[in-house]
Amino acid sequence: MQGLNFSPTLAINERVGRARRRGEHVLHMGFGQSPFPVHRLIQEALAANADKNMYLPSAGLDALRSAALGYLAGRSGFDGREFDAIIGPGSKELIYDVQLAVEGDLLLPVPSWVSYGPQAAILGDRVIKIPTTLAGHHHVTAESLHEAIVASRRAAGNPRKLILNYPSNPSGLTLTADRLRQIAGVCRDHGILVISDEIYGLVAHDQNHVSIARFYPEGTIVTTGLSKHLSLGGYRLGVALVPRCQRPVFDAMVRIASETWSTVSSPVQFAAVKAFEGHPEIEAYIQTCARIHGLVSGFVRDAVVALGVEYPELQGAFYLYPNFGVFREALRKDWGVETSEQLARDLIDRVGLATLPGTAFGDDPTTLALRLATCDFDGQAALAYYADHPDSTPESFVPACCPNVALACERLGEYFKLPT
Amino acid sequence: MQGLNFSPTLAINERVGRARRRGEHVLHMGFGQSPFPVHRLIQEALAANADKNMYLPSAGLDALRSAALGYLAGRSGFDGREFDAIIGPGSKELIYDVQLAVEGDLLLPVPSWVSYGPQAAILGDRVIKIPTTLAGHHHVTAESLHEAIVASRRAAGNPRKLILNYPSNPSGLTLTADRLRQIAGVCRDHGILVISDEIYGLVAHDQNHVSIARFYPEGTIVTTGLSKHLSLGGYRLGVALVPRCQRPVFDAMVRIASETWSTVSSPVQFAAVKAFEGHPEIEAYIQTCARIHGLVSGFVRDAVVALGVEYPELQGAFYLYPNFGVFREALRKDWGVETSEQLARDLIDRVGLATLPGTAFGDDPTTLALRLATCDFDGQAALAYYADHPDSTPESFVPACCPNVALACERLGEYFKLPT
Repeated sequence: MQGLNFSPTLAINERVGRARRRGEHVLHMGFGQSPFPVHRLIQEALAANADKNMYLPSAGLDALRSAALGYLAGRSGFDGREFDAIIGPGSKELIYDVQLAVEGDLLLPVPSWVSYGPQAAILGDRVIKIPTTLAGHHHVTAESLHEAIVASRRAAGNPRKLILNYPSNPSGLTLTADRLRQIAGVCRDHGILVISDEIYGLVAHDQNHVSIARFYPEGTIVTTGLSKHLSLGGYRLGVALVPRCQRPVFDAMVRIASETWSTVSSPVQFAAVKAFEGHPEIEAYIQTCARIHGLVSGFVRDAVVALGVEYPELQGAFYLYPNFGVFREALRKDWGVETSEQLARDLIDRVGLATLPGTAFGDDPTTLALRLATCDFDGQAALAYYADHPDSTPESFVPACCPNVALACERLGEYFKLPT
Repeated sequence: MQGLNFSPTLAINERVGRARRRGEHVLHMGFGQSPFPVHRLIQEALAANADKNMYLPSAGLDALRSAALGYLAGRSGFDGREFDAIIGPGSKELIYDVQLAVEGDLLLPVPSWVSYGPQAAILGDRVIKIPTTLAGHHHVTAESLHEAIVASRRAAGNPRKLILNYPSNPSGLTLTADRLRQIAGVCRDHGILVISDEIYGLVAHDQNHVSIARFYPEGTIVTTGLSKHLSLGGYRLGVALVPRCQRPVFDAMVRIASETWSTVSSPVQFAAVKAFEGHPEIEAYIQTCARIHGLVSGFVRDAVVALGVEYPELQGAFYLYPNFGVFREALRKDWGVETSEQLARDLIDRVGLATLPGTAFGDDPTTLALRLATCDFDGQAALAYYADHPDSTPESFVPACCPNVALACERLGEYFKLPT
């Protein structure tokens, strides 16, 4: 385990926490945790199920499995009847379990979320990185995927699985239905299993998420959970939807569960049923939270663009992944900054702003990309302000109720007011 | 993952559950789940923390880690100052994480709990089985351990870790302080890390549990949780106590956590603090539950002995592991039963009694051992009866308030009334 680092997102969160406990005013664009409170109905459901101490089946509570499947398939545009659900202690664990269950090389777009690659490393699986471009919204294209598969096979590789994540952490950009259809075609041709991480599906700012499972139901495992759209990261409940025709993978995942984490906390599972019932109050809450994330991250995106850094309109989640390469010469000459890790450290040191360097997402050290998370605001205050000002724009909303985000953008501007 | 079977304990539980839903009256000696309700104070603590949706550190909530460490070290007779705690989603997952973090061959007593070996198989680690005897209370001796290590090294093996489990599932027997001291000596001499699974420590019927960490603090990782003594299996919270001098193992475990299960459910962690505060009401509850387990399992042990099968007095947990080899000839001649798996199936078919075969615990197929779990009773009813009859004996208690256990013993007697 020597080569394995502590997950950088969790590490930076703990580091900022410690600095804050020392009284330092560090602004936190490093850790993406949706800041809204637990919805009242879900709190009540958890409290009402505090007496549930029995082990549930490893695949999860039947009522929860079917509620989650129906709900998620319906909101992601595919036919749930072709799938079976497994409930796990977070979608991260379920992704690890799929990687463990399915041997072979992992096709991984760059940039991609911090834990996919390290999971493959724990399992000794080879990672085949697929570069992406900002013009391509930092997602694979059918062409780049096809080329990566062919090149890997030519080099005696064994590409078997691909992880997609849309809306994406770190880019805040998603995949269109057209591109998903094209990617599905390539995967079908080459027999590639897709692990489709759709944890931000219901944080699509326009609530228009579509899953690749619509186009490739026989080869897609959808993973998601409650962490993002309901701000329930701390509850630890994830869902994997596995095609019925992939029965050996489903069985292997349940066997792995039964030998490791057993089953998810019973009170949490019973409470989670409430999240998948389509209760109008909860549905409205999900929509409001997604809209607020759109406002706040839109504000940060505008601030980045104002610096002269190109970035598309954001589509979901609460991140963006700008490349500050336009400042490369000045950063090197003035401050000796040549890598994204140096840049991230320099931002903490000079302006007290925490971000994550591109290397955490698989990018080359000299690519001056940072992931900016846009969640450092008080969810309760933002909800209250939004209730009174439903027609807010990013420019009116953030200064009014997200002071840390506004200040972070100021500090970012200050830092990059370099003599270019 | 082809060779990996679904955990047999969970599998039998689900199988019996299905049979019962079909209306069959199967008696369940297959699954060990403590049947008492969640203590009121812990239910209240969970309800009060339903709003906790933030990710906690991967090693766990600080207040919980220190409370758990102090509490467990104090009740297991060792110096907690030499240890650090990690909170995980069940001790099973934490044992898997230790096995993943520490490379090398696993020394495993036979019989031992069903998941240790499969975990090693998932990780591709070699398992070195160490036979035990009923006379040795189904635990390793210093001699058998020493011999196994030497023999393995002679065969170019690399024994690095040993799992002990006391009080033991499946035997219901524990290790004395003297034997622990001797085993510690062998482990120290050979540089073997002990994974000391003490999940039943507070279900020692006389509440006299001592950990090997007293004798081998530098090389013992204690794993435990709330599942057994507080009947909180469904809550999914385990604890690992790692020696401070084993910092690389601690760090590797936290890194593994950060890349897989992240952290344990926040409301559960906050609620669990209550379990480690030494609250007198909870302490009395733990003691009462352990005593009732002693009464019930003592009744089953007496029933087994009455059949002519040797078994020591039980010391903890809620199991026993009798060997029905005395009936070997009759079983073979009359019913064609020659293996423990055939015996377990035959018991379900002929008398509707579910047990687990010795093979699930690593024993040879022809060893006619079964694990009998003694938890198929109504915890609430047992508590009520015990409150009125604190001086109960096994013979008075079980017939009065554990009808399924009494009936299971009758059916066992009926089955083995063979023409020997």
